[in-house]
Amino acid sequence: MINAVFFDMDDTLCDTSGFAHIARTAAIKAMVDNGLPCTEEEGYTLLKEIIKEKGSNYNKHFNILTKKLTGKEDPFLIVNGIITYHNTKFAMLRSDPVCFSTMIYLKTKGYKLALISNGVNIKQWEKLVRLNLYPFFDEVITSESVGYSKPDKKIFDIAMKRIGSTPETSIMIGNDFNTDIKGAYNSGMRAMLINSKLTSKQQEFIDNNEYKLTILSNLGELKDIL
Amino acid sequence: MINAVFFDMDDTLCDTSGFAHIARTAAIKAMVDNGLPCTEEEGYTLLKEIIKEKGSNYNKHFNILTKKLTGKEDPFLIVNGIITYHNTKFAMLRSDPVCFSTMIYLKTKGYKLALISNGVNIKQWEKLVRLNLYPFFDEVITSESVGYSKPDKKIFDIAMKRIGSTPETSIMIGNDFNTDIKGAYNSGMRAMLINSKLTSKQQEFIDNNEYKLTILSNLGELKDIL
Repeated sequence: MINAVFFDMDDTLCDTSGFAHIARTAAIKAMVDNGLPCTEEEGYTLLKEIIKEKGSNYNKHFNILTKKLTGKEDPFLIVNGIITYHNTKFAMLRSDPVCFSTMIYLKTKGYKLALISNGVNIKQWEKLVRLNLYPFFDEVITSESVGYSKPDKKIFDIAMKRIGSTPETSIMIGNDFNTDIKGAYNSGMRAMLINSKLTSKQQEFIDNNEYKLTILSNLGELKDIL
Repeated sequence: MINAVFFDMDDTLCDTSGFAHIARTAAIKAMVDNGLPCTEEEGYTLLKEIIKEKGSNYNKHFNILTKKLTGKEDPFLIVNGIITYHNTKFAMLRSDPVCFSTMIYLKTKGYKLALISNGVNIKQWEKLVRLNLYPFFDEVITSESVGYSKPDKKIFDIAMKRIGSTPETSIMIGNDFNTDIKGAYNSGMRAMLINSKLTSKQQEFIDNNEYKLTILSNLGELKDIL
C-alpha cells in the first residue's frame, strides 16, 4: 500500500516550460520594440539556440543575444529583456487549481508528500513558495542540496529515508522518462508519467522490464487512483 | 558656461538607500513571520552587519542570516526573504516627480546629461529603465563598464570625452563626497552635493582648495541654478 508520493517539479507540478515560453516571447518583444535589430520570431529562435547551448540556468542569455545581433552587449536591451522576462514569469507563477486541489486531497488521505527535483535549490524553493505549494510537502529534495541527480537511485533512497517509506510504499510522479521514471525504476518504486508521451523505445523498456507504469493525462486523475 | 551635467545614481537620482531599507525591513518581517528565530529588530540588525561585511552586491545575505540564526542555510526562509525583498523593491522603484520634472527641464534647456556611477552595469541600467529615466541620458558610464571608479579622474575624462564637454563646461551632481565630489575635483570640473551634509574635514578640504561646491537640498533646485 502506497503511503508516500514523490513529485517532480518542472512540467509536473508547475508548467515551467509554458511559463518560460511566454516570458521569453514577452522579453523578445520588449527587446525588439526597443531596437533589437531582428523580428520577434528571429529573436526567439536565436534565444532558444543560446539557451540550448548554455543551459537554462545560465544567467546571461540576453547578453549573448544582443552581442550576436548588434556586435556588442547592449545593457539597455538586456535589462529590457530581463525586466520583462521576470515581470511576466512572476505574474504567471500561480498555482493551477487542479494541482492545488489534488495536493489537498492527498494530504487529507494521509499521504506523505515530497519533492524530488533536479535543479538549483533556491530556484525550486522559490517556485514552491510563489505557488504556495510548500505547506503540502513534508520534504524537499533537490539535486543541488543532496549531491545526486535523478535518475541516480541515491536521490530516491535519500528521499525515502527522510520520509520514512520503502520502495513498496512509494510512488514517483513526473514528466521526464529519463530522469523521473528511470530513477523510480532504479530505486525499485512504482511511477506515474504525466504531461508526456512514451516513445516506442521507452515503451519497449517498460515491456522488457515488466515495469508497472501508470500514464496520467493530468494531476487530477490522482484522486481516482490514490 | 555649463553644457554637460553628470549625475550619480544611488541616493542622487534614486533613493536607493531608502528603498533598500524598506525592502529589507519587509524581507525580515516575512522571514520572522515564517519562523526565523529572532525579533524583526534583531534580524534587521544582523542583516545590516552581514551586508556591511559582504558588500551590498553580494547575493547570499539571507543564506548567511539563516545559517547564523538556525545553524544551517534554510531555503524556505531564504526564498521568503528574497521574494519579499524583490517584490517590495520593484513596487517602490518609481520615478520621483521632482527628479523627473528636473530631467525634463534640463533637456529643454539643451544640457547634455550623463550618468557616472560606481556599480554593476546591469543593475544601474535596470534602475534607469525601471525609473524610466534612461531616455534623458546621452551617455551612461558605470565603473564596471569602463574599468575605473569614482573618484578616479579617468572615469570623468571618459564621460567628458563621450559627451563632448570639458572640465569648464561640466558639472557633477552626487551625494557622496569621497567619490562624486572628490572625483569632480580631481577631474577639474565643478560639483554639487545633494542629500548629504559636509563634515568639518570635508569643509576644510573645500576651503583649503578654494573649490567651488554648491549644496543642494533637492534636485528641483537645479531649475533655479542651471
